[in-house]
Amino acid sequence: MERCAILGSYSEEPHRLTRPFGSQAMRLANEAVAAWMQAAGMIVQRDAIGNLIGRYEARSAGAKTLLLGSHLDSVRDAGKYDGPLGVMIALACVERLHQRQERLPFAIEVLGFADEEGLRYHTAYLGSTVMTGTFDPDALSLTDTNGVSVAEAIRASGGDPDPRILQTPRWQRDDLLGYCEVHIEQGPVLEARNLPVGVVSAIAGQSRFNIYFTGEANHAGTVPMPLRHDALCAAAEFVLAVEAVARSLAGLVATVGQLTVQPGVANVIPGQVTLSLDVRHQHDPLREQACHQLEEQLEKIGRVRGISCNWQELPVHPAVPCASHLTELMAQAIKETGYPVHTLPSGAGHDAVVLARLTDIAMLFVRCQGGISHNPAEAVTTEDVAIAIQVLERFLQLLA
Amino acid sequence: MERCAILGSYSEEPHRLTRPFGSQAMRLANEAVAAWMQAAGMIVQRDAIGNLIGRYEARSAGAKTLLLGSHLDSVRDAGKYDGPLGVMIALACVERLHQRQERLPFAIEVLGFADEEGLRYHTAYLGSTVMTGTFDPDALSLTDTNGVSVAEAIRASGGDPDPRILQTPRWQRDDLLGYCEVHIEQGPVLEARNLPVGVVSAIAGQSRFNIYFTGEANHAGTVPMPLRHDALCAAAEFVLAVEAVARSLAGLVATVGQLTVQPGVANVIPGQVTLSLDVRHQHDPLREQACHQLEEQLEKIGRVRGISCNWQELPVHPAVPCASHLTELMAQAIKETGYPVHTLPSGAGHDAVVLARLTDIAMLFVRCQGGISHNPAEAVTTEDVAIAIQVLERFLQLLA
Repeated sequence: MERCAILGSYSEEPHRLTRPFGSQAMRLANEAVAAWMQAAGMIVQRDAIGNLIGRYEARSAGAKTLLLGSHLDSVRDAGKYDGPLGVMIALACVERLHQRQERLPFAIEVLGFADEEGLRYHTAYLGSTVMTGTFDPDALSLTDTNGVSVAEAIRASGGDPDPRILQTPRWQRDDLLGYCEVHIEQGPVLEARNLPVGVVSAIAGQSRFNIYFTGEANHAGTVPMPLRHDALCAAAEFVLAVEAVARSLAGLVATVGQLTVQPGVANVIPGQVTLSLDVRHQHDPLREQACHQLEEQLEKIGRVRGISCNWQELPVHPAVPCASHLTELMAQAIKETGYPVHTLPSGAGHDAVVLARLTDIAMLFVRCQGGISHNPAEAVTTEDVAIAIQVLERFLQLLA
Repeated sequence: MERCAILGSYSEEPHRLTRPFGSQAMRLANEAVAAWMQAAGMIVQRDAIGNLIGRYEARSAGAKTLLLGSHLDSVRDAGKYDGPLGVMIALACVERLHQRQERLPFAIEVLGFADEEGLRYHTAYLGSTVMTGTFDPDALSLTDTNGVSVAEAIRASGGDPDPRILQTPRWQRDDLLGYCEVHIEQGPVLEARNLPVGVVSAIAGQSRFNIYFTGEANHAGTVPMPLRHDALCAAAEFVLAVEAVARSLAGLVATVGQLTVQPGVANVIPGQVTLSLDVRHQHDPLREQACHQLEEQLEKIGRVRGISCNWQELPVHPAVPCASHLTELMAQAIKETGYPVHTLPSGAGHDAVVLARLTDIAMLFVRCQGGISHNPAEAVTTEDVAIAIQVLERFLQLLA
């Protein structure tokens, strides 16, 4: 908890926590974490993009490696736990092994990713794609609001923007046992169930759409109701259809987060509405089924109301399942630590999504207050963090 | 039709019709109309705020006066008929009397109001309030986007901003027979019924509200549907309740024209929604009943969804009924001209609303294409305008 508070003081902005990729704040955070890693008996490296790697060797040479960790960058006006908590809990477990002078039959690498939130370049996972050899070299020419490119930012922070290096994975699949990430839940489920931790079953898949409704703008006083083609009434019907479909399918979440009305004047019937739709489920076929139902309902709303409705799909993110043999060990660890096991999907993306391209993944969620994240009000309790450390320690022992 | 086209060329902007109060374009329009009035045997005056008045004397001295007319100013990027058509049709009727050297047992004054749309100062009816002695002197200090006050604009266009003069009505109630305004419908009702003209029963009353929904903004991926307090879903339910209540009450129109979502991000559950509500009916008790129903439904939506809903009422405009003895004469004139009589409310405001403070009013609507107004696409047919002139002529004869 103290270390999260220290890391929370490294910010690009004076009175709030904002720690983007390649910033001075990020270098200070990395230096602090590197020192704690060294004190815990780890050998510390930085890779070409600035990911921090602390390695704790296995009992014997030639053993496989288990990856732990999370990201050290933040969103703007962030909380202290989203990312750093996962690195600190992994570090605490290694520290305890080191204190007991205990080695496991596998090496542990604790990873602090350089960019997960994508605040500076609007590209999430710059850090983990480099670690897994899936970095897109086109990203090197992206620029931030000051015109500084990714390549320049890498160079300025002591890295190497050579695409051949950035595209070389740190490990081969056979070197690894898996990747396990601890993270705050960022949702209210554990709190509602009064549980300190939960096992993640999968990172939910996500479909995104922009939807356009075109009716007829006209005078709000002079057009009788039966002669109207009100784009907002059609959109409202669709918003409620989205909610109803999501409520009818267990585990589905669907959200209209943006909605704009044209012309947007109190005494004019809306002629055009544009809205966003975000649909997530841990099972891709169920997500696809829900999207199909919604597309049908949209078509019907348009037909009945004489409104033109257009449906534009954005790139899909398929679901990423966690590896059952790892989640089963994690569930056992929770049980042996004395808590009921609750399994839940992750509705948000994590570095684990990218690590899954290379190795088996598992995630442990820690209850957070009110489900709030990406906000200074983000909070976890010392008791829950202690439980999470115990569970991860137990998980390591079970895996050993 | 030609005169409307000529007036349409007097604009403050090069490629579209924009003729605000006190502009050079307005002075040119007034000069043109004044010349046509004089040619029709009328004595022309301008009052202190710039309203144009053409008087055609009665058969004998001491007779009462019938007022005809409409406004000569426009909205931005206007059509050619909203306002001017009513002045031109009144002028055409007087012109025919003059050609036949006919005098009626009452005088006629054709009025061209200087400001109905309120484009320049966002205060409608500056012209007609001066004519009726109901001008608010506080309006004198309002300024336009260039910082020019109403008082300065009046002086610059040759008027007199003395509040005592502006607040003195041109007539006493006993001097007048009434005010009759011809106007394009600005709605699609006559077109849908295939009728050239219609008699207005009343100018509808209007209630306006700002409504605020406050739920809980949160991550669109991590909060299961049953744990959400989505302000947009609550607002959508209300938008559909507004539509349903309006559809269930004959003659009611109700519109949500503005709706904004906070934070308005695709992957965040909406925490706040603000929307506008506009409710109109020609009978005030029915409008009030509808508003009461909607307030109850809003309360219920908020209670069921755990959303705070606040209802802020803006100043009400009560309905203004037309005088039955005048509308009956107008209906008879339509019938005798050979067309079916259709009576409809006006959903939009007109100078007649202000004239009703002083005298009986009547209105004749002329079919307009697609119900479109406040738009360059505004259109009427020559045939319909000819019929409207015939009807107004017949009305004058019946009144005589």
